[in-house]
Amino acid sequence: MHIPNLHTSLATTLRNRRQKLAKLINFPVILWSGSRSPRNFPANTFPFRPSSHFLYFAGLPIEDAAIHLDGEKLELFMDNAPPSSLLWHGEMPRRDHLAEIIGADAAFPMQELKSRATNAATIYVQNYPTQTTQFKTLNRDISAPNNPKEIDLELTKAIISLRLSHDATALTEIKQAVAVTVEAHKAGMAATKNSKFESNIRAAMESIIISHNMTCAYSSIVTVHGEVLHNEQYHHPLQTGDLLLADVGAETNLGWASDVTRTWPVSGKFSPTQRDIYDVVLAAHDTCIAQIKPGIEYLDIHLLAAQVIAEGLVNLGILKGEAEDLVEMDAHALFFPHGIGHLLGLDVHDMEDLGDLAGYEIGRERSSRFGLGFLRLNRPLIPGMLVTIEPGFYQVPGILNDKEMRQKYQDIVNWEKLEKFDDVRGIRIEDDVLVTPNGAEVLTQELPSDIDSIENLVE
Amino acid sequence: MHIPNLHTSLATTLRNRRQKLAKLINFPVILWSGSRSPRNFPANTFPFRPSSHFLYFAGLPIEDAAIHLDGEKLELFMDNAPPSSLLWHGEMPRRDHLAEIIGADAAFPMQELKSRATNAATIYVQNYPTQTTQFKTLNRDISAPNNPKEIDLELTKAIISLRLSHDATALTEIKQAVAVTVEAHKAGMAATKNSKFESNIRAAMESIIISHNMTCAYSSIVTVHGEVLHNEQYHHPLQTGDLLLADVGAETNLGWASDVTRTWPVSGKFSPTQRDIYDVVLAAHDTCIAQIKPGIEYLDIHLLAAQVIAEGLVNLGILKGEAEDLVEMDAHALFFPHGIGHLLGLDVHDMEDLGDLAGYEIGRERSSRFGLGFLRLNRPLIPGMLVTIEPGFYQVPGILNDKEMRQKYQDIVNWEKLEKFDDVRGIRIEDDVLVTPNGAEVLTQELPSDIDSIENLVE
Repeated sequence: MHIPNLHTSLATTLRNRRQKLAKLINFPVILWSGSRSPRNFPANTFPFRPSSHFLYFAGLPIEDAAIHLDGEKLELFMDNAPPSSLLWHGEMPRRDHLAEIIGADAAFPMQELKSRATNAATIYVQNYPTQTTQFKTLNRDISAPNNPKEIDLELTKAIISLRLSHDATALTEIKQAVAVTVEAHKAGMAATKNSKFESNIRAAMESIIISHNMTCAYSSIVTVHGEVLHNEQYHHPLQTGDLLLADVGAETNLGWASDVTRTWPVSGKFSPTQRDIYDVVLAAHDTCIAQIKPGIEYLDIHLLAAQVIAEGLVNLGILKGEAEDLVEMDAHALFFPHGIGHLLGLDVHDMEDLGDLAGYEIGRERSSRFGLGFLRLNRPLIPGMLVTIEPGFYQVPGILNDKEMRQKYQDIVNWEKLEKFDDVRGIRIEDDVLVTPNGAEVLTQELPSDIDSIENLVE
Repeated sequence: MHIPNLHTSLATTLRNRRQKLAKLINFPVILWSGSRSPRNFPANTFPFRPSSHFLYFAGLPIEDAAIHLDGEKLELFMDNAPPSSLLWHGEMPRRDHLAEIIGADAAFPMQELKSRATNAATIYVQNYPTQTTQFKTLNRDISAPNNPKEIDLELTKAIISLRLSHDATALTEIKQAVAVTVEAHKAGMAATKNSKFESNIRAAMESIIISHNMTCAYSSIVTVHGEVLHNEQYHHPLQTGDLLLADVGAETNLGWASDVTRTWPVSGKFSPTQRDIYDVVLAAHDTCIAQIKPGIEYLDIHLLAAQVIAEGLVNLGILKGEAEDLVEMDAHALFFPHGIGHLLGLDVHDMEDLGDLAGYEIGRERSSRFGLGFLRLNRPLIPGMLVTIEPGFYQVPGILNDKEMRQKYQDIVNWEKLEKFDDVRGIRIEDDVLVTPNGAEVLTQELPSDIDSIENLVE
């Protein structure tokens, strides 16, 4: 682990987080970092990624470690690397050194952790062997992180309330991730002219992230088939007339993520039909961002996007009727089937390990409606909250060719007109928007999204 | 999963492998592919990497699948993606289609697998949830893959005997990985002049691999601190006078790996001391490769490298005495502490999940000697075997500053002379060498390793 230069004192930040947590709970907490997951054999692992809850309170990505929080007190538990690891891994940071950086009151070998287990709450990590350790250490049942019980539930709710609103240290990190992501997208656009396959553009984008010694916060989507929402294929050739959708985001060494999507024409020029649809998506994007401020319901932002998209598609002759009615009958979701966005922080879908406990205000549940069910966030916006705004338009064969859908929306969609737009398979425009006390700050504003600027960056 | 174009019929290759296996065992086999490992939340996973044993007999990286082998008969078990996955993942290959490509005699949903469990042998996969599935399906104890019991041990030995020698399909794949790796190393050298940090060069190299739609077979080592053997840090600045060690290898979509190391001067010119040591390592490299042919003991290749390095260091005045005596007393290992190489195939350390069952001939065990203990392969070479040859020279502080070592080798090392070589922290030259019926083929021969060529590529 390389300890990066920290802009503010990490110890101070972590103390502030503990102080806030201590006001919400009255029991101790143990959080584990997790260990590496093997790839094809034990010594060939995926890169280490600690639990985000651990990272939030421990600050550094320390492998095979745990922290014990008791009121404002922080204890670090980890084993120093054995001398035999020197040859293979070099000098590893020592427990006492790490404890000092993160402002721990004390530091102990892992075996001492057992003595802190009484009445301690925790959250299950994603790493299976560590789950076994959690279970053995606490010697009690631990439920899945999206369904915690008793003190684990209380802890989960308290952590959610903290992580919903980012502090200055978090924002400094996220802005670094955003800056690299913006550069990556510009590199991807610039590389398009000389690229033959999706993978060539992916390489241009991810190499910027690797070059800045960051990692990808999620599996990059770089595809001419943007209608497959989580496309992980990169083998398609780039053809004149294709739109390329790139959803790529960097993550800092301390685990803070960014999440940005742009869609651009492979040829450097949008066709008239692509331009028409792009401007509908862009209008939804701009309209939604203009509404972001504390107190606004994120659900209303989603519905606003649906409304703007429905209106736009009516104007293009693709949908028939009044936008408001079309949204009521989920007609927008034929082309915009996902939610307008999600929380962003240490996870690209922040705290998604906790299920809808994080994304949904207490007492709210996912809608079963086709046009609302994929919404990941349903809370009023508060200052410090970071959300993505990512409207899109997709022609998903699985939706548009579905018999039930065809029948239900037979008279709503002008199917003949729609065929003229068959060079628009998928468009998404995604930015990272911070809720400020008085409105919003678009962290990704250095990356333009209007047609002229995009065409210039591709050329 | 994208199914790549296959140069020969995959089904034929797989049938040949099954025929060979059927001659060695007389019980059925179930091999699981495994599932994705979560990164920070369940929907954000590391890229899928199937079990190599599954890949060897199933050919394609199919997620959450299993195959049943009974004699020459192959059955595929997997569940088709539900219709709801269309939106997120697009059209996924169907069971029957995959079964046809791999030449399966039949294909069934996963729940049918239980009916094939009787007397079936298996090997534990690296993915923990799948281990639970294996255990539940077979309803018996399964030991760790490096310590299998009864029929699992018999199966393991049979698979080792097959995988020790590569068939034409495997070699076609590996040569594709090698070609991309060679290009990546050349790109890394060419990028050095305009790079400020290790991460910049790593980006130049990995972007070639990503651009070819391959993955890294292992965590890249790209470092000015080559003395840390498995260095995973990339933040160090590049300084005039530094040597950069890059150990980077591509893996194809079907899982076949390459593994190549080059060391070059950041400035484009080796210093006289760097040149001296580099030539010692290169002499070991060339001498070893020249000896590779069927029947030769890999241990003898290792000892030959040790001998050449000891001789070279005597000639430079760093070691004192006769090379043979120095190797006997492990003095070479002060500077060349690891083995001369390892098996290469579907895993970068091929079959290392099986521990020394694969690397060591039956009846042989790891030596406890400082100079031999890290040797990963101790078998006679056979045609079709692919090994790395990777001699090195390192000044590891943990070894050279160790009191016991200093004392033991007080009169063997000219410590004063050694100080003149302090701009040589780590050098390794690694190539992939195929044992042919009459000798050897260096698969990585397109990447030169002599000083002049290296300097030209960096300039």
